[in-house]
Amino acid sequence: MATVPSVSYSITVRLEVPAGGKAVSLLTHAVENAGGVVTALDVTNAGHEKLRIDVTCAARDTDHAQTIVDSLDAVEGVVIHKVSDRTFLMHLGGKIEMQSKVPLRNRDELSMAYTPGVARVSLAIARNPEDARRLTIKRNTVAVVTDGSAVLGLGNIGPAAALPVMEGKAALFKRFAGIDAWPICLDTQDVDKIVEVVQAIAPGFGGINLEDISAPRCFEIERRLRELLDIPVFHDDQHGTAICVLAALTNALRVVGKSLPEVKITMAGAGAAGTAVLRLLLAAGARNVVVCDYLGAVHKGRSDLDASLMWIAENTNADGYSGDLRGAVKGADVFIGVSAPGILTGDDIATMADKAVVFALANPEPEVSPDDAREHAAVVATGRSDYPNQINNVLAFPGVFRGLLDAQSRTVTESMLLAAANALANVVAVEELGPNYIVPSVFHPDVATAVAAAVRDSAGGRARGFTEA
Amino acid sequence: MATVPSVSYSITVRLEVPAGGKAVSLLTHAVENAGGVVTALDVTNAGHEKLRIDVTCAARDTDHAQTIVDSLDAVEGVVIHKVSDRTFLMHLGGKIEMQSKVPLRNRDELSMAYTPGVARVSLAIARNPEDARRLTIKRNTVAVVTDGSAVLGLGNIGPAAALPVMEGKAALFKRFAGIDAWPICLDTQDVDKIVEVVQAIAPGFGGINLEDISAPRCFEIERRLRELLDIPVFHDDQHGTAICVLAALTNALRVVGKSLPEVKITMAGAGAAGTAVLRLLLAAGARNVVVCDYLGAVHKGRSDLDASLMWIAENTNADGYSGDLRGAVKGADVFIGVSAPGILTGDDIATMADKAVVFALANPEPEVSPDDAREHAAVVATGRSDYPNQINNVLAFPGVFRGLLDAQSRTVTESMLLAAANALANVVAVEELGPNYIVPSVFHPDVATAVAAAVRDSAGGRARGFTEA
Repeated sequence: MATVPSVSYSITVRLEVPAGGKAVSLLTHAVENAGGVVTALDVTNAGHEKLRIDVTCAARDTDHAQTIVDSLDAVEGVVIHKVSDRTFLMHLGGKIEMQSKVPLRNRDELSMAYTPGVARVSLAIARNPEDARRLTIKRNTVAVVTDGSAVLGLGNIGPAAALPVMEGKAALFKRFAGIDAWPICLDTQDVDKIVEVVQAIAPGFGGINLEDISAPRCFEIERRLRELLDIPVFHDDQHGTAICVLAALTNALRVVGKSLPEVKITMAGAGAAGTAVLRLLLAAGARNVVVCDYLGAVHKGRSDLDASLMWIAENTNADGYSGDLRGAVKGADVFIGVSAPGILTGDDIATMADKAVVFALANPEPEVSPDDAREHAAVVATGRSDYPNQINNVLAFPGVFRGLLDAQSRTVTESMLLAAANALANVVAVEELGPNYIVPSVFHPDVATAVAAAVRDSAGGRARGFTEA
Repeated sequence: MATVPSVSYSITVRLEVPAGGKAVSLLTHAVENAGGVVTALDVTNAGHEKLRIDVTCAARDTDHAQTIVDSLDAVEGVVIHKVSDRTFLMHLGGKIEMQSKVPLRNRDELSMAYTPGVARVSLAIARNPEDARRLTIKRNTVAVVTDGSAVLGLGNIGPAAALPVMEGKAALFKRFAGIDAWPICLDTQDVDKIVEVVQAIAPGFGGINLEDISAPRCFEIERRLRELLDIPVFHDDQHGTAICVLAALTNALRVVGKSLPEVKITMAGAGAAGTAVLRLLLAAGARNVVVCDYLGAVHKGRSDLDASLMWIAENTNADGYSGDLRGAVKGADVFIGVSAPGILTGDDIATMADKAVVFALANPEPEVSPDDAREHAAVVATGRSDYPNQINNVLAFPGVFRGLLDAQSRTVTESMLLAAANALANVVAVEELGPNYIVPSVFHPDVATAVAAAVRDSAGGRARGFTEA
C-alpha cells in the first residue's frame, strides 16, 4: 500500500463555507492535519454569504480520504456537498475511443471509404492477402488480450474488471509508440478456448499482446498461439518484465564492475515473470543462478516439479542447493525478486556479497524494504514509482511492438528480446550511469525509438512483400 | 457497375509537359475525350522547360481509368510519371485508429489511468460488474463482427479482405452516432465457433453488430448469440435493411395514398435481408405478401423448404400462388427486390396495379432498370446513390445502436425496430414528401438522433443500476 499521499487517490471535495468567516483559511490546515496534501483550491461560486469551494487533495488510500473529509467536515461552518474521486472521474465512459482517420463529410468521401469504392480494396486483398498489412489497420494494431485471471496484484477478478487495466495499456501503446491497441477481455479461462478465440480474431491485428493471464496457463497459451499465428504473440508479464530486468541488471553490473557470466544470482519467484526473466538471463550469458519459490530452492531432487519447474531445475542450481531463500541469498551478488512482499529483511541483504545488487520487484510492497536494502546493497531497484530505479514494463512493450509492426514480423524471437534489453540499457549514457540511475524514466524520449530500432533490426528488416500504390 | 464516372474510381495522374507548348491546355480535353471528368489540375512543379502536373479525374471503373491514362499519354509532349488510385491512397494504413481520451503527460496522470490508481476502478467493477457500463468503454463500444462470407456483393472473400469494409462501417458508426466501433474479422466460418468466439469477446463491448455473414448461417448465429449475451446483437444486413425498407414503404404509401394492411406486396429474395424485411413488414401490419426466390413463389406445396422458407410459406401467400416472379408482380401494389440484377423489365412493372411502388434494391445493378420502372410506377427506390430515394442502411444502424447504448439495453426487440422505422419515416416532413423524396439523405442531421430517441424510448429508458461517482 502507498505510504505517502498519492494523486492516484486524489479526491475533490465540494463544500460551502460562510463568506465572511475564517473557515476558508482553515481548510488547508484541516487537510494537512489529517495527513493529506492540498493540490488545488478552487472557488467555484462566490456569493455575499457563502463561498462554494472545490478542495482537491491527495490521500494515501480510501480510508485516509474519508479521514480527510471528516476533518474538513469538522471545521466550523463547513457544509460538505459532494466528494468526487478523481481517478473514478477520469474513468467515466472509459479511457479510449475509436477515431476515423478519413473524412466522411460528403457523398464522394463516403463512396471512397465505404461502398462502392471499398470493394476494389477488398478485392485487392482477396487476391493478395499480404496487402492487408498495407491497406488496413492490421499494419498498426495490437490486440491486448486478457482473461482477467491475474490482473495486477488483484488476482482473478474476471474480464469486465480487467477492462480498465487493458484500456490503460492500450492508451500507453498509443502514447509511447503510436500503436492502435484494442482491449479484448475474454469471458473464458479455458486454455483451449482462449487459443481458439485469439486465433479466430487474429486477421484484424498485426500483433497479440497477452496480458495478466495466470501461470502456468499463460505458457501453453503463448506457445500454442505462436505456433498457430503468422503475427507476433508477446506475453508482456513474461517478456516485458524480462527485457526490463535484463536491461537494469546490465547497467547495475556496470555500476558495481561485475560481469553477468561471473555473478551469483538468486531469484525469488518461479511464476510467469520469474521464468521469463530466468530464461532471458541465461540467454544473455548468466551461468550461476538459483531460483526459489515458496517451497525453497528449485532443484532436481524435488518431487513436486511440473514441466516449467523441471526446466528451471535442469538449467540452474548446478550445485543442487536445497535450502531456503535466506540461505540462497547468502553470498549472492544479485537478488531478483518477482514474488511476494516482505520475504527478506535488511539482515538478509547484509549476508550478500560485497557490492550487492537487489531488485525487489513485488508490487506494491517489495520483497524487502528498499530503505533497509539500501543500507547493505550497492544498487537497489523496485517496481515502485516513489523510489529511484523503477523497473516498469512501459519501458519495453511499446518499443517492442513498434519494432515488430514496422518489420512486419511474424514472430518474436529470443534474439529480439536480447536486442531490446541491450538497447534499453544503452539509453542510459555511461556518464549518467549510477547507483540511482540504472534505467531511464518511462518519459525519456529515446526509450521507445531505441527499443523499436533494435527489435526491427533484429527482425531482419524483413522485405515487405507488397506492391506500392 | 457504375455507368457514370465516380469519385470512387478517382485517379491522380502525375505527368510532365513542356512548359511552353500547348500540351497543358489539351489535358482536360484528353480526359473528357476518353469519357472522364477532371476534378482537379494541380501544377506541383513549374520549371522553365517542364511543368509537373497532377491531374485528378473520375473514371467509371478500372478499365476506364486505363483508357483515360492512355488518352493523356497520347498528347504530344506528355510524359506520364505515376498513376495513383485515390481510393487506394485513402486506405493506406487503414481508415481508423485508437485514441486515448485521457492525457498521459506525467507520472500523476499515469498513476491515475494505469497502476496503481486503476486498481481501485477494477476492484469496484469486480464488486459490481454493472459498473463496467459506467467506468469502461463498454458504455459506448460496438464490435463489428464478420466472417467474410458475404461481403458486399463480392461473396465469400474471407476475413482479411472484409477488413476494409468493417473499418468503413466503424468509421460510419463514429461519424453518424459517436459510437466507438472496432472491427473483429473472424478466421472461421463455423457457426458453433463463431458463436463461441463472439460470446468470449463480449465483455468489452456494449453491443454486437453482425455484418456480411451469409444466410442461413446468420440466422442461427444471431439467434444463439441473443440467447447467450446480455448485450444487444443486431445483424445489420437483416434488420438495418428491414428498418430502412419499412420506413421508405411507409412514406411511399403516403405518397400514393394506400395503406399497408391493404396493399399487395410482391418480394423477390428470401435471403437474410428478404426474410428480415418480410418479418418487419408483417409486424407492421402487412397482410398480403408473396415472396419469390430463384425457384418462384414460396408456398407450402414446395418440397425444398428449409426452416426459414417454411416460416415464410406459412406466413405469406395465403392463396398458395405457385407461379413465377413475373406472375406474382402482376397486379401487385408494391414490389420489393432484395435479390439479383435485371430479373424484371419495364413491361413487368407495367402489369402492376395503378400507382405502383417499386423498390429495386439489388446493388450495384437493381432488379429492374430504375429508368424503365419509373415509366410505369409512381415511386421508385434503389440502393444506389445516383438515383433519388436511396435506401441505405447508414440511415438506420448508427441511430439504432446509439439508442441501444444510451438505454443500456440488453436486447433488440421487434418493437424497437418498428419504432426506428417509424422515426426514420417521420424525418421526412409531410410537406417535403413526394415521389422522389421518401427517405432522408444519409447526411440529414436529424436521422440518427430521431432513430436513437425512438429506440431508446422503446427500450423503456431502462433504469441505470449504477451509483454515481
